[in-house]
Amino acid sequence: MGLNLSGLQALFEPRSIAILGASSDPAKIGGRPISFLRDNGFAGVIYPVNPRHEEIQGLTAYAHLTDIPEQVDLALIAVPRPAVLAAVRSCADAAVRAVTIFSAGFAETGDEEGTLLQAQISDIARETGLRVLGPNCLGSVNRRHGVSASFAASEREPRPAGNTGGIALISQSGAVAAYCVLAGLRRGITFDPWISTGNEADVSLADCLAYLALDDDVKVIAVYLEGSRDGDDLRAALAIARDRGKPVVLVKAGRSEAGSKAAASHTASLVGSDETFQALARQYHVCVAESLDDLINLAYTFGFAALHGGTRTGVITSSGGAGILMADAAADVGLEMPPLPPQVQAQLRAVWPAAGVGNPIDTTGQLVNDGRLLSEFLQVVLRERVFDSLIVFLSYIGMFPDWSPVAVDALSDARDKYPDAEISVAMLTTPDVRRQVEALRIRAFDDPTTAVRALGRAISVTRGLAEDPPLPPRGRGPATVPVPAGTVLSEFDSAALLEAAGIPVAPRRRVHSAAAAASAAAELGVPVAVKIISADLLHKSDVGGVILNVPGPDAAAEAYHQVITSAQAAAPGAAIDGVLLSPMISGGTETIIGVSNDPVFGPTVMFGLGGVFVESIRDVTFRLAPFTPAEALRMVSEIRGRSALESPRGGRRRDLDALARTLSALSVYADEHREDIQSIDVNPLIVLGDGDGVVAVDAVITGR
Amino acid sequence: MGLNLSGLQALFEPRSIAILGASSDPAKIGGRPISFLRDNGFAGVIYPVNPRHEEIQGLTAYAHLTDIPEQVDLALIAVPRPAVLAAVRSCADAAVRAVTIFSAGFAETGDEEGTLLQAQISDIARETGLRVLGPNCLGSVNRRHGVSASFAASEREPRPAGNTGGIALISQSGAVAAYCVLAGLRRGITFDPWISTGNEADVSLADCLAYLALDDDVKVIAVYLEGSRDGDDLRAALAIARDRGKPVVLVKAGRSEAGSKAAASHTASLVGSDETFQALARQYHVCVAESLDDLINLAYTFGFAALHGGTRTGVITSSGGAGILMADAAADVGLEMPPLPPQVQAQLRAVWPAAGVGNPIDTTGQLVNDGRLLSEFLQVVLRERVFDSLIVFLSYIGMFPDWSPVAVDALSDARDKYPDAEISVAMLTTPDVRRQVEALRIRAFDDPTTAVRALGRAISVTRGLAEDPPLPPRGRGPATVPVPAGTVLSEFDSAALLEAAGIPVAPRRRVHSAAAAASAAAELGVPVAVKIISADLLHKSDVGGVILNVPGPDAAAEAYHQVITSAQAAAPGAAIDGVLLSPMISGGTETIIGVSNDPVFGPTVMFGLGGVFVESIRDVTFRLAPFTPAEALRMVSEIRGRSALESPRGGRRRDLDALARTLSALSVYADEHREDIQSIDVNPLIVLGDGDGVVAVDAVITGR
Repeated sequence: MGLNLSGLQALFEPRSIAILGASSDPAKIGGRPISFLRDNGFAGVIYPVNPRHEEIQGLTAYAHLTDIPEQVDLALIAVPRPAVLAAVRSCADAAVRAVTIFSAGFAETGDEEGTLLQAQISDIARETGLRVLGPNCLGSVNRRHGVSASFAASEREPRPAGNTGGIALISQSGAVAAYCVLAGLRRGITFDPWISTGNEADVSLADCLAYLALDDDVKVIAVYLEGSRDGDDLRAALAIARDRGKPVVLVKAGRSEAGSKAAASHTASLVGSDETFQALARQYHVCVAESLDDLINLAYTFGFAALHGGTRTGVITSSGGAGILMADAAADVGLEMPPLPPQVQAQLRAVWPAAGVGNPIDTTGQLVNDGRLLSEFLQVVLRERVFDSLIVFLSYIGMFPDWSPVAVDALSDARDKYPDAEISVAMLTTPDVRRQVEALRIRAFDDPTTAVRALGRAISVTRGLAEDPPLPPRGRGPATVPVPAGTVLSEFDSAALLEAAGIPVAPRRRVHSAAAAASAAAELGVPVAVKIISADLLHKSDVGGVILNVPGPDAAAEAYHQVITSAQAAAPGAAIDGVLLSPMISGGTETIIGVSNDPVFGPTVMFGLGGVFVESIRDVTFRLAPFTPAEALRMVSEIRGRSALESPRGGRRRDLDALARTLSALSVYADEHREDIQSIDVNPLIVLGDGDGVVAVDAVITGR
Repeated sequence: MGLNLSGLQALFEPRSIAILGASSDPAKIGGRPISFLRDNGFAGVIYPVNPRHEEIQGLTAYAHLTDIPEQVDLALIAVPRPAVLAAVRSCADAAVRAVTIFSAGFAETGDEEGTLLQAQISDIARETGLRVLGPNCLGSVNRRHGVSASFAASEREPRPAGNTGGIALISQSGAVAAYCVLAGLRRGITFDPWISTGNEADVSLADCLAYLALDDDVKVIAVYLEGSRDGDDLRAALAIARDRGKPVVLVKAGRSEAGSKAAASHTASLVGSDETFQALARQYHVCVAESLDDLINLAYTFGFAALHGGTRTGVITSSGGAGILMADAAADVGLEMPPLPPQVQAQLRAVWPAAGVGNPIDTTGQLVNDGRLLSEFLQVVLRERVFDSLIVFLSYIGMFPDWSPVAVDALSDARDKYPDAEISVAMLTTPDVRRQVEALRIRAFDDPTTAVRALGRAISVTRGLAEDPPLPPRGRGPATVPVPAGTVLSEFDSAALLEAAGIPVAPRRRVHSAAAAASAAAELGVPVAVKIISADLLHKSDVGGVILNVPGPDAAAEAYHQVITSAQAAAPGAAIDGVLLSPMISGGTETIIGVSNDPVFGPTVMFGLGGVFVESIRDVTFRLAPFTPAEALRMVSEIRGRSALESPRGGRRRDLDALARTLSALSVYADEHREDIQSIDVNPLIVLGDGDGVVAVDAVITGR
């Protein structure tokens, strides 16, 4: 469909808002937004629309939209389902710029009437340019602009002091959005703006994501994703965020088979495979959250302040035990914990001889007896700039008024002297102590493992966003690839196409006589493989259509007859298109590369080692097409059995660069021809010794 | 050392407590326990000991321990390090039953003086029978008996109402113990008893674990473990818990290399390998926690009420989105979510036509508009008894006074009618609503994924504890195995020992002449393998000492000369002990089994597939010896490449029963001879087709 950002400013930053189905009761769906907008300081004009009232919640009510004297940016539709379509039409007629439909009972019901009504709403949006959020959504909130265009209970809650701002949320589920907003508020984290996209009759999650990615006030975007009708749009939106270095934290519902089934029945959109989603996350540097709680923590980690991507991490802890748990967590998420240089260790020992001066640095419980100890430790460690970031575990001292100043004062001294130091704290606190710590621009977590895990993942994504070159542009190739829909090309025809696309394929000859086979064998060099060519015979070996290691020209002539006879006997009706000869490749490591066209995200390239690796343990990895050779090298590094390529037993390192170029070339080809090609299987692709390249020995392309 | 439970009752349920180094200041370490004991209702007698006061905190103070008129159960030692040893001696002299040493500065410092002092304390304990908790510990708390024998800040905090009790905690780190206790209190969970074991000069974590495992009031034991000086003791204590079906939830610090290094410098005890620890956890059905937060959640899940082990799980949710996340989490932790039978679906649809009636069952947000909807859904689902347990997600309605009755009333109706139903809830609540839910014997979590993950893992451990037969007893074999310390037995000698232990080994002959080789080949049947026998030549192949597939008697005679010549040329000094012939085994799947003697937990058996599986991807699994054939079958099922055994390409299923018997036999042998044997390598063990058994083709035993 393509991303569509037009009208989104009117939707998310309206200066005038009409409420269709406005209610005098501030507890009702049609009454709540009015009360929220007023309580939360909306500076624009609010127009309640309801023919049965002259005044609603102290505001002049209008009988009809057309009675409103000015153009309306946003209309909120809170009328019963049967009245929704007419309401949307009236908005389009009145040149309203955007509507949000709270009402439910559309495509999410699965019934014909609801689905049809929603399609009609989509039509109006497409035809008139009216932007429609929902139906069946909780609306959107953008308190920077005083906008509470929602009936969510969260909007009547006070926002915490010291709201850091810039942590945005987009959710395909309204209830999940409200849960996250409230769970966030409870621990002092404010999601703003937040958007519930509902059934996405028009405005999609991808549109919202692109819109927020372009908003400089937004530091991080948290996303709850169930499915996507248009994977290309989502990729385009993620590409905008990636190019701008803006982190996206995402929880994906429907990872499992059971979850995916539940998602399919809950949403009208396609779910796609989890393998493809994981590939998407890696390529676009999306930070994947494991739960809503994790989503909130990660959003906080990114949104509280910008991170640099340095992994050298120091841990200062009041508990040796917690320090060990933090070292374990650091190892899990790729944070290094280099030791302190000896002279720094000596400085710390001078402060407190019983301290642990490795890394973790253990102040011991002494820090509550000696009010200066923590401060001195922080100063020494920060002065030496050994670490890119510091995580300080202070157990429970933030819970007790007699001890919390030890923490707050020491951190305050540290911040004064080192305004740019990257510091996070894990400790139990009162809400007030938490605010004091955060006011120092120091992140505050409770659990030490949670703190390290969140920081490590956020740092890794930050580094990826900063260092990785932009993704290759998506292309569309010349329409020179006649792969008829649903048909399977023969190995011979597939090989020709792949070779043209830059994939090295074994030399081959197609012959139509035994004599030609003999001379082809002589030309190619023996031993050769002799195979039947037939688009009707998918499994050539199963019909006796393949003879390997044919030792010479005479044997090749014999093999010619044999594969034809066998194939004809096994499949009498099969159209035989000749016999293929190619030299046997000796040495190297067998790999498999393949492309499948994901219903949501398009061509996805798989890479794995051949034989038992793929068959028994599915040791494979995926990327969305297209990708660069550098990305392909990362794929190779993700394979558990990679030592078979990097340091094969009894052989030299394989040509990984050629492998990477080939994977990348295949991905570009698959992307360009995504309208024509359903799948490509290259099995095996033999990776030869370093410098000797790769060679595809068998390949099949299937049309879409 | 052996578990030692004597005197632990005096330590943890004392009727009289003396405080050495008692202080009038209730904020000081020597003052706090007095104030805590009085505030928390200790019914026994408190004897402050301090020669400089006549009265301390309103109690008569005693100048010396010997002035106390009765025998003292427990003495708390809060004197400076230089005075500790004398204090311990005075306690032993006065026939005090147990002491807890708060003072620090012993083995944890790593300095010679501290280490020596601690050893002297251990000596006194061993010689006099005085039990010693600590030094360098936070003490122990057992509020059921009014005992706050600790200076932890947590003891001045009020306990929450509706304390469920029975959730015990043992920690090798005092700070971690206090953190967990306070983090628990903050969310309404009480750890009681809780024990900080510190440096474990005498009383070990294993002793405490066994003691609590035998206490019927304790429902679950949460453990923070850094290392264990005596793995056999820990295994013995875990075996007691396992036999009594008592769940142990454990967080292990030092899993990673960095963490393990930090642990080694923080504790005097050995850490052991993570692989061995994971094996221990599986065999003893220990529920492994991933963080302190997770430890607290899991302890709550077990301790709140007994679980049955049924995995059929129903999810009722007010948010379709959260339902999908819960289905994903259920799949991760092995919970099944069967669909509702059609007639039950119809009943739910009759209540609310827009409901999702699969599983997850989606009430939609309608439940806040229709106060009876949730109650009716619960009643229908519980009446039909489709599920073993029910998890209900209610988003944030427990936060709002106008909505929370919807939840509480419906759950209350459900509990009235179904007193035994296993129900848990995930929703944001006020503390008060949380208590109302828990008063209905319904677990209350916040995050839906966290709830499902905790329940799933707890249910799995519960099922394991209920269903698994007891572990085989540990044995000690007859001292008939002369494996000299540190030496390596030849393949021929190793094979003889393993065959005697019940491991099928390929037939073999040792010969000392070419003629004998020829006739041995004829006897064994050709082709044969011919190998040099020499304990000096570990890598026979590398010195040309192995010739495989020798086709006949004459060739065997030739091969005899060849392996001797090659070996002598490569290693002139090597003692050659003949030449070994054995028939080549054809068919089957190569596996590797091995034993290594873990410094903490003793012989550990590894199993994996041979060749690339072990070399490239380390597709292996571990168990502590000894174990049953049933446990061995579980090992096989954990291997990623198990299809090579279960459904090998082009072959029939392998003899898994024989494999399991062999693994078990090896484990029993390794356990019995753990004093003599350091490692055993059987590589390969060929697993033949079903019914044809297994055969070890090469093996080496190394002495300890």
